[in-house]
Amino acid sequence: MATERLFVGLETSFCHDLPATLDEVYAEKMNAVIAPLFHPRFKRDDHQVSDDRLGPMSRSDLVLDSRGWTSSVIGGVSKWINLDSSCPRVRLAAEKVFKQEIAWASHLSVPAVLLPTPSAQKCSNYARVLNQSATQAQYLQFWVRVPLTTRPHPLAVCASNRQGPSSDKCVEGDDDAASFSEVDDNGPSPWEAWDALRSMCEYHPKVGVALELTADLPSPEELKRWLGEPVRAVIVPTDIFLTNRKGYPALSQRHQRFVMELFQYKIQFYLKGRPHHRGRFLPYVQYLHYLHSKKPAVDAKALFEAPYLDYLQAPLQPLMDNLESQTYETFEQDAFKYQQYEKAVAKALAQTPEDKVSVVMVVGAGRGPLVRCSLRAAVTANRKTRMYAVEKNPNAVITLRNLKISEKWDNVTIIASDMRHWQATEKADIMVSELLGSFSDNELSPECLDGAQAFLKEDGISITCRYTSYVAPIMSSKVWNEVKAYDSLKSFETPYVVRLHNFYSIAESQPCFTFVHPKFGRIDNRRAVELTFVAEESAVVHGLAGYFDAVLFEDVTLSINPQTHSDGMFSWFPIFFPLRSPIRVERHERIVVPFWRLANNNRVWYEWALHTETGKQHAPVHNPNGRSYWIGL
Amino acid sequence: MATERLFVGLETSFCHDLPATLDEVYAEKMNAVIAPLFHPRFKRDDHQVSDDRLGPMSRSDLVLDSRGWTSSVIGGVSKWINLDSSCPRVRLAAEKVFKQEIAWASHLSVPAVLLPTPSAQKCSNYARVLNQSATQAQYLQFWVRVPLTTRPHPLAVCASNRQGPSSDKCVEGDDDAASFSEVDDNGPSPWEAWDALRSMCEYHPKVGVALELTADLPSPEELKRWLGEPVRAVIVPTDIFLTNRKGYPALSQRHQRFVMELFQYKIQFYLKGRPHHRGRFLPYVQYLHYLHSKKPAVDAKALFEAPYLDYLQAPLQPLMDNLESQTYETFEQDAFKYQQYEKAVAKALAQTPEDKVSVVMVVGAGRGPLVRCSLRAAVTANRKTRMYAVEKNPNAVITLRNLKISEKWDNVTIIASDMRHWQATEKADIMVSELLGSFSDNELSPECLDGAQAFLKEDGISITCRYTSYVAPIMSSKVWNEVKAYDSLKSFETPYVVRLHNFYSIAESQPCFTFVHPKFGRIDNRRAVELTFVAEESAVVHGLAGYFDAVLFEDVTLSINPQTHSDGMFSWFPIFFPLRSPIRVERHERIVVPFWRLANNNRVWYEWALHTETGKQHAPVHNPNGRSYWIGL
Repeated sequence: MATERLFVGLETSFCHDLPATLDEVYAEKMNAVIAPLFHPRFKRDDHQVSDDRLGPMSRSDLVLDSRGWTSSVIGGVSKWINLDSSCPRVRLAAEKVFKQEIAWASHLSVPAVLLPTPSAQKCSNYARVLNQSATQAQYLQFWVRVPLTTRPHPLAVCASNRQGPSSDKCVEGDDDAASFSEVDDNGPSPWEAWDALRSMCEYHPKVGVALELTADLPSPEELKRWLGEPVRAVIVPTDIFLTNRKGYPALSQRHQRFVMELFQYKIQFYLKGRPHHRGRFLPYVQYLHYLHSKKPAVDAKALFEAPYLDYLQAPLQPLMDNLESQTYETFEQDAFKYQQYEKAVAKALAQTPEDKVSVVMVVGAGRGPLVRCSLRAAVTANRKTRMYAVEKNPNAVITLRNLKISEKWDNVTIIASDMRHWQATEKADIMVSELLGSFSDNELSPECLDGAQAFLKEDGISITCRYTSYVAPIMSSKVWNEVKAYDSLKSFETPYVVRLHNFYSIAESQPCFTFVHPKFGRIDNRRAVELTFVAEESAVVHGLAGYFDAVLFEDVTLSINPQTHSDGMFSWFPIFFPLRSPIRVERHERIVVPFWRLANNNRVWYEWALHTETGKQHAPVHNPNGRSYWIGL
Repeated sequence: MATERLFVGLETSFCHDLPATLDEVYAEKMNAVIAPLFHPRFKRDDHQVSDDRLGPMSRSDLVLDSRGWTSSVIGGVSKWINLDSSCPRVRLAAEKVFKQEIAWASHLSVPAVLLPTPSAQKCSNYARVLNQSATQAQYLQFWVRVPLTTRPHPLAVCASNRQGPSSDKCVEGDDDAASFSEVDDNGPSPWEAWDALRSMCEYHPKVGVALELTADLPSPEELKRWLGEPVRAVIVPTDIFLTNRKGYPALSQRHQRFVMELFQYKIQFYLKGRPHHRGRFLPYVQYLHYLHSKKPAVDAKALFEAPYLDYLQAPLQPLMDNLESQTYETFEQDAFKYQQYEKAVAKALAQTPEDKVSVVMVVGAGRGPLVRCSLRAAVTANRKTRMYAVEKNPNAVITLRNLKISEKWDNVTIIASDMRHWQATEKADIMVSELLGSFSDNELSPECLDGAQAFLKEDGISITCRYTSYVAPIMSSKVWNEVKAYDSLKSFETPYVVRLHNFYSIAESQPCFTFVHPKFGRIDNRRAVELTFVAEESAVVHGLAGYFDAVLFEDVTLSINPQTHSDGMFSWFPIFFPLRSPIRVERHERIVVPFWRLANNNRVWYEWALHTETGKQHAPVHNPNGRSYWIGL
């Protein structure tokens, strides 16, 4: 988060004296180290690990107090451990050593361990052992080291590191100008290896990525995809830095842009390698802090949203339930939204004859914000109006009646009624409503306004007059795991309102359902679409993000659809429709999403499914008959 | 089942007088009809279904009593219903009619409805509506009509059928000689459409196949695949019959073979079309009965297995639990197995000097069958022996002590002890055991014999001396649904002993783990393999079938591995390791199966995973740390 300070640490090879090393690290304005858990000199023989040979292979746990271990040290797991060796002895020895190191890390209470880079070709035993450890771990996090590109191949690096605590360099790239396109054909990308590993661990929430930056960078889309992964740490080798005119280290423009993007997330940064500038790490640390300081200042919207990032909420049911005062209060603070309403109403009034007294009905008036907008709009447009504020929540009606007195709403009549059933005494020229949910129609705006249009004149105007929901397939093991934590079929067939943050949109959103008001002719609010997306990159579909946009009147709009999102508006977060089993898709593969809005006499619900065209993987139809989730009429 | 009579019915277009039609059908030795639920003449307008136009579109439910409806009629759903029309009105009207017909079928209590053939290109709305209906249905079964081949395309057939109750012909193929290879390139196969539909319905157990035979037949592998699907009915058009020399109908050799295979399952057969031979259906019915009579007679093994087909059992834990008398009784009846043991012991004894008194120890003697084998073998080989019968189950020991008296086992000493802990007073020349489970080592034979070999002479013989487990990826929505019915993570991470019947082996089984006895050197019974299979046909992997084979001594073996199954042996059914989410694989795609046998001080367990190479679909590692299933030491 922007409000937090940047956390910078150092990855070291073995250090004899951890307290002294930490003192040096603190002196260079860093916060922590990644240090090997066991001394590489004690590397156990590949063919046999005998307990009696182990001796004190590691420093004592007494060199730091527990606060030191928990706040300042990440345990580096030995890189030479080869869990997928074809030789059973090597493999079994590797398992033993791996578990020994994890046990030691747990004993020390370090917050995380840094694990070796997996191989995309063969990592099933690595996955099994990691899955076992993650399933058993209490607090320990597992960071899997993944380089952005494979030059040289990680296996080669591991092999060269087997000689002991020499250089840790993973990247030989010497300048930033190297194109990324050539990387594509070098066999599976590091992401593929990561995906194989974590899929076999079923996206375990304790398993994250330690992303190692490389001099070469992959394509912008691949970089973007990493922002959807659970990146916990970024490792920055000193030799990817350039030197600026004053002799200080600096990153290339592309690296800078990517690092700035990473700053959005709660990620720790670790320097790695020897300091090539002025023999110290401080200039690198200062440079990262300098970049961090260039982040845009935290605005009101960001501040409001901060606690909600990737946090699941059940969608509101304002029709079935009555909203609470606090909820009204939150939404009333969205200045942009009400400016748009004021603009729309003013524009509609301005088109009426100057002497006409227009009947304006606010349907679903809540605690009155749209009444205020409409009153201000009448002033702006210099038109006379007679207003009605229709509200079904008796608690909100009390507020409205008080406001009528305190704010002198002389031309406003308060109607305590459900808009679907009110027998109006006259008809409206303009009907103003704000009944939209994150997915536009999911709070039953269509059904409510269809009822209310009974008292709208034939040439009357509905503000809002048109709205459309949007859907995009997304990857987010973070959000999917939040759903999984509920551990039920029901939870996987329920949409959630969530400020999506740690996610990757596999394709741009597409329009899903559209509704217009008023409606003429036969009314049917059931819908069915089948959307086809093309995956921008290989990814895992964890579910569908939902958005909406709406036309209030003519060119006055609201949108939370990413392509057209209204600046500064915070009333709506996206909605997330999970998939019970994530589905892997390939780059440029077509993804078919059938989506339905269904209804019976007392409920509305969605059903959704997904399948790939080439892989023919099918997600079953979710939420049949609204068995898990529905909206009450 | 072979013991049951063949069920033959007739698919009719509309018949005015159902009771009269049924009388005719009975007269032709048939049992039932598939009749349209609604008269096609009352086909509702594509653009609007208005309730008042419906009138009595169907015969009254009073024409038959409820026994008639439930035993003799299958409801045919109107073929013109187009649930995936791109026109919303047609689609909505189709949904309405579909649900109306299903509701009527439920009201009549017919056992099943016959549904139209889905299109592989577009069937998501069909899937949704079917999924809804299947989820809500109480007793009704849903049979989806699927032709074996698509000549002509089913959509074209549907279109031509919209004109009313004219011909129902789906196949124009005129002879059996047409090769099947050309069919392959005709776009998606009918199986693809079925797979898309039922995957989206999550393999709903109420959704089955009504397989329509065609003059052309697909490849033998594709035919075999259908045997793994939930085929509930087979529709046999009269025009695929040839005429034999006497002028009677007969099927081609290939058709005969396939029909004979179908007879293994509980499938109803329905004739369809006009009778081309002697103007009657009777000759066709008689021909099918004739084919059915050619089924091999039911042998003892088949009789024994009949109640266990596709029935899940938890694997035995004979080490942790004590077997019951009944269980011993069942296994003691396997004549073949004990013949092999007798042969193996006799062969081993025959290799000893004539005057030697061999020490034979039966470890895990149970109620004594191997003692008897060994005694008989000593007679056959004409050798002297001193025997020990070691058994840990105190209840079985009582039986052994009684047998020693009643059967005069003068040279047999009964030892009431766990073989792993017995302190023997002398060492054995031959150690005889039957500790194998369906997956060979899954009842902990390795651990038991490793303990017992302490009292085996250095040059002693273990019978069994070597065993290997085998694994194959299989498709079986039947068995997978049995697991799903338990509705828990635990149930999906447990292997089951099951006489697999309604399943398709996607590739031949491959050896998994091997154990030999006695062992020299360091003992480690943990194992890890990564098997790669190539799918013979596109299919869905629902789990892994497990088998074993074993060498008792030299060339004397036992096997339940399909390639080498011992004739007549029934002691072991296969084992099934489920996948939590089925994974679709393409024809000739490589399927990678990592499999582990793991152990700690008091438990042994398996973990397994699966991934495809091209599709990169991953099943997570199942049963980490033995959380759901383990075998107690």
